[in-house]
Amino acid sequence: MLFDKNIFSMIILYRPITIIKEENEISVKPNSREAILKTAAQLFFTQGYHATGLNQIIQDSKCPKGSLYYYFPSGKEELALECINSIKKIVLDKWKEHFGYKQNAADAIQSFIEALADDAVRSDFEGFMPFNFWMAAETSPISDKLRKTCQTVFAEWQSIIADHLVLGGIPADKAKEKAVVIVSLLEGALILTLTNKDKETLLTVSSYIPCIVNN
Amino acid sequence: MLFDKNIFSMIILYRPITIIKEENEISVKPNSREAILKTAAQLFFTQGYHATGLNQIIQDSKCPKGSLYYYFPSGKEELALECINSIKKIVLDKWKEHFGYKQNAADAIQSFIEALADDAVRSDFEGFMPFNFWMAAETSPISDKLRKTCQTVFAEWQSIIADHLVLGGIPADKAKEKAVVIVSLLEGALILTLTNKDKETLLTVSSYIPCIVNN
Repeated sequence: MLFDKNIFSMIILYRPITIIKEENEISVKPNSREAILKTAAQLFFTQGYHATGLNQIIQDSKCPKGSLYYYFPSGKEELALECINSIKKIVLDKWKEHFGYKQNAADAIQSFIEALADDAVRSDFEGFMPFNFWMAAETSPISDKLRKTCQTVFAEWQSIIADHLVLGGIPADKAKEKAVVIVSLLEGALILTLTNKDKETLLTVSSYIPCIVNN
Repeated sequence: MLFDKNIFSMIILYRPITIIKEENEISVKPNSREAILKTAAQLFFTQGYHATGLNQIIQDSKCPKGSLYYYFPSGKEELALECINSIKKIVLDKWKEHFGYKQNAADAIQSFIEALADDAVRSDFEGFMPFNFWMAAETSPISDKLRKTCQTVFAEWQSIIADHLVLGGIPADKAKEKAVVIVSLLEGALILTLTNKDKETLLTVSSYIPCIVNN
């Protein structure tokens, strides 16, 4: 499975803490930080930032309220920033994996997209798909901090693609352009895939990757 | 201006009504329906479905609460369905406009994208852009009715592009594929454009249209 949910828990650093019990009954469980981040990322990236309330995160993560405010004292935006950075890394690692086992950059990009398509089917077109990053458009107008963090995510995804296109002999300026086209294509294709509940769009755009890379 | 806000009011059918004043002080103003739809569409398509509450629509449209429940008795979902259908038509008309004044399909698609880019700049990358349709991904998991309506929107946009590619001599099956790629590309490029607050992504993807159309 391309984006196994367990991968997420692996990349979040476990920060051991002591259990705190204060007058006002704030309790913090060890492992809470990890559980909160995992739950929050899944909610933000499936139903969106606005639709996700702190109460739902607390409820779904089965963590005490105190943990959320202990680890993320600034609340939802801080939590979202951390989730976005984690997602960025998960997807970068996936790109590295595909570029690692395919010699040719176009082949690697196609294999990445096909794995995305399988993932979409497996999640019944509703589950957690880190590369599905429309949250960037949702949050951009309301928080410049979130917008800039999402901007970095797209830039780093483009950068790893461009670097591998350059390794394949494409001039740097063209490689940069093609990476922009490829990330745009995949983000849009994911919107259509989830709307149609059908992996066909992803497979169709995948078949156009050689054309984009080689022309 | 590609998507002038006034265009929206032009396409919504004006339904004249009598002013109703009931015991419970529900008041309905003429033109309310139009104002509610215009406001709702702008809110849904900039901040998203979840972020938009009925109270904000009432407040921003300056219409009495009674009007909203009079015209849209089933509430937010019904209102969103009507907005989505209106947006579909606005964008279809824009496609027709560009295909109308350019002989070559690739030229028409590029001119559509360049107009989108100008629109994004004019709206300071935050305003109402009907083609920016990530709301489809946001609403798909929560309402099958909304999902199916969004699916029709994408299908009709693809269909007009494919028809014009066929007119340009491209076989129907290939034209259909290319239309899927083009709509995906534009939807994704809009997400990146709004996140980067820079029209460069749209201009870059525009320069790849001839490659996608002709290969």
